[in-house]
Amino acid sequence: MDGQTVLLRARVQTSRAQGNKMVFLNLRQRIDSVQALLTVTPEKVSKQMVKWAASLQDESIVLVEGVVKKSPEIIKSATVGDVELHLSQIHLIAGLEGRLPFTVEDAARPDTEIETNEEVQYKRVLLDTRLNNRVIDLRTQTNQAIFKLQHGIGHFFRDYLDAQGFIEIHSPKLQGAATESGASVFKVSYFKGSAFLAQSPQLAKQMAIAADFERVYEIGPVFRAEDSNTHRHMTEFIGLDLEMAIEEHYHEVMELLDSLFKHMFASLRETYKNEIDTVRRQFPADDFKWREGPEGTLRINFRQAVDFLVEDGVPREVLDDINTENEKRLGRIIKAKYDTDYFIIDKFPMELRPFYTMPDPEDPTVTNSYDFFMRGEEILSGAQRIHDPTLLAEKMRSKGVEPESMAFYVDAFKMGCPPHGGGGIGLERVLMLFLKLNNIRRASLFPRDPKRLEP
Amino acid sequence: MDGQTVLLRARVQTSRAQGNKMVFLNLRQRIDSVQALLTVTPEKVSKQMVKWAASLQDESIVLVEGVVKKSPEIIKSATVGDVELHLSQIHLIAGLEGRLPFTVEDAARPDTEIETNEEVQYKRVLLDTRLNNRVIDLRTQTNQAIFKLQHGIGHFFRDYLDAQGFIEIHSPKLQGAATESGASVFKVSYFKGSAFLAQSPQLAKQMAIAADFERVYEIGPVFRAEDSNTHRHMTEFIGLDLEMAIEEHYHEVMELLDSLFKHMFASLRETYKNEIDTVRRQFPADDFKWREGPEGTLRINFRQAVDFLVEDGVPREVLDDINTENEKRLGRIIKAKYDTDYFIIDKFPMELRPFYTMPDPEDPTVTNSYDFFMRGEEILSGAQRIHDPTLLAEKMRSKGVEPESMAFYVDAFKMGCPPHGGGGIGLERVLMLFLKLNNIRRASLFPRDPKRLEP
Repeated sequence: MDGQTVLLRARVQTSRAQGNKMVFLNLRQRIDSVQALLTVTPEKVSKQMVKWAASLQDESIVLVEGVVKKSPEIIKSATVGDVELHLSQIHLIAGLEGRLPFTVEDAARPDTEIETNEEVQYKRVLLDTRLNNRVIDLRTQTNQAIFKLQHGIGHFFRDYLDAQGFIEIHSPKLQGAATESGASVFKVSYFKGSAFLAQSPQLAKQMAIAADFERVYEIGPVFRAEDSNTHRHMTEFIGLDLEMAIEEHYHEVMELLDSLFKHMFASLRETYKNEIDTVRRQFPADDFKWREGPEGTLRINFRQAVDFLVEDGVPREVLDDINTENEKRLGRIIKAKYDTDYFIIDKFPMELRPFYTMPDPEDPTVTNSYDFFMRGEEILSGAQRIHDPTLLAEKMRSKGVEPESMAFYVDAFKMGCPPHGGGGIGLERVLMLFLKLNNIRRASLFPRDPKRLEP
Repeated sequence: MDGQTVLLRARVQTSRAQGNKMVFLNLRQRIDSVQALLTVTPEKVSKQMVKWAASLQDESIVLVEGVVKKSPEIIKSATVGDVELHLSQIHLIAGLEGRLPFTVEDAARPDTEIETNEEVQYKRVLLDTRLNNRVIDLRTQTNQAIFKLQHGIGHFFRDYLDAQGFIEIHSPKLQGAATESGASVFKVSYFKGSAFLAQSPQLAKQMAIAADFERVYEIGPVFRAEDSNTHRHMTEFIGLDLEMAIEEHYHEVMELLDSLFKHMFASLRETYKNEIDTVRRQFPADDFKWREGPEGTLRINFRQAVDFLVEDGVPREVLDDINTENEKRLGRIIKAKYDTDYFIIDKFPMELRPFYTMPDPEDPTVTNSYDFFMRGEEILSGAQRIHDPTLLAEKMRSKGVEPESMAFYVDAFKMGCPPHGGGGIGLERVLMLFLKLNNIRRASLFPRDPKRLEP
């Protein structure tokens, strides 16, 4: 575009006067930035104009007109490094009131640069400060890129499932009864009574299968009233849920989910190369690895996962369940053994799964259920569900849930329901682990946790 | 497929024995049905098998194998009328426990047929009975078609906006403060304090614009604590929301929204012809009409809308606002005058709009805001928003909202925000009005209203 005149709206990331006749501006639009310069000329640009431009506060929004010029050398401070803009006009569209809590430049700097640079003492912007001023924090090129990938995950999820004959449903988040288990639900004042916030669309999507929808998915908020203050828990997150009728074996569902993930991973890598590189500059990470060849995704049974951990030195007595720490350890073992960041554990024990999980017909101590993992953290939990109302009622009672308390759910199976299964994916977890952001709050636009309800 | 052998899973909609050697089954899959017959043959089908098949309860799920045969005459009781299946095998996949509250056939019958048929006294299934047993009700071919269209609306909404450079966001439904106005929000117990359910993603999507996302949309639940028991109100519904930066004039937003609607209407009509016809059989309606030619969508100002109503005999004194009844009347006037079911009203008075609405710079008694209508009912409300923090604070105070109570929102504009506007669409309203379903509950999978929290 060398020589062309352009008109554009952008943020002033920085402005720097050079003498009293010239000012350099770093102009930013989402994940890109370009260097612009305004120089006093007899016809168009006055001294006052240059002075005014040099005094523009960082983060002001301006409308500029200028000519694109090939730059004699690559400009390292801008993402578009091979050209610069020679401005003829500049107008203020929106200024600032008050001071910025931190600069976008400071917010975008990788920790490694802060730690290793001995000449400059950079300001480190803490996560809490960022989240308190999320609107500024989100302006970094890193965050602009992160949320493009978030958009991409939802897009590829739907695209894949649409092509497989699924339809999107929207199930209510307001529930008449506390669902799935007595604990961990938020209570809502509902006119003269109470309601509860759905902790997943589990019941509704199974009822959609009983209602003949065959294959359904939902993207929507799920609510967890757990007082967990960890790097990977939020009280509200986005669930990517699906449920489908089974023809012969629950591995039909597991295989569809596996293909779905591989489609999402490959599409992200292809479509968002630039964005992934942008995030890497602030959050260095190895490429996310999965097995793409004919050998297929690594699948192991729960028992085998336990054996791997025992071989690695974990006492078998503590492995009735695999806790977060051992999950990560397992991830490292598998990465070393099989060179993959993505794998499936099948056949979880009955006592670890909710009442609606189908027991294995050949071994009733285990279930037809699976979890999927990325970089040693769980990102999907799923299973074949019980479609027989008698077995369902029995399992509910054995887990301490009265079938009568969820009559509308149990009734759905009394009216005839095909065998079915599904799973629920945490959107922010997939995003966090694909990019290795290390804290789920970075993968959520305005995160909610037990201590945070704003902004 | 004449002569081919097929294997399929389906519901038994009805079974009818003919003597003791033959049984006719109406087999249903989602919006389609086919006639099947099982006849005693020396090799394959025993008398016992035919007797068993004749005794199958309606709504049982069976797996059948059979040969497709061209039917000598069109079978009217099935949607696939030109063939029938000659079965060789039939297996029960899922039976029923107890009796159906009503049959799917009864649930699918149009009211007109019940009223005009004098020979048979059909059972009328009331809306409340349907909703109490929604899983059965949803199995009608009508409902299967309705929710395919619901899926379609979301799909076309995203498709169009993705192509226009929008990204999808997910904003939190749990809010620290009651937003937008003091009334009409649900209160949630949040650990030791309280939270509120978002009555729209308004604040979050504007903050996303202040955070440089430029063009965003969201599809998600919105919550309204109004005790409105009407045909068009629910306490939870799906909002299709968007927000975008404006370059020169707020009509950029209005025109994009208009193009979006026309894209959705045309795509629905093209993609879902069969489904629309299926719904029509139960809910007769004229085709939904909009102006597709170069003349464009009909747009009138609020003042002109009032004049139309006055000309039609409504006293001007009652027209400070246009109530539901007058909205419908206006719809009829415009349909008669311009032959369209779809139009836009622009320039609403300041006192009818929320505090964040941008006043018209040329006439501060009116605003840069618009509503969109389908068949005389509002389906979108939108506007240019105030991006100047001083003006925003002033308007908040004049509407009785303390800016300090929403500091995180006002602060977003203090940090510089481009001019922007947007709108919010009610998904279920669009679906209800496009198909003329006459009650919004029919456009929601599991509707919620002040009196209904289940199923």
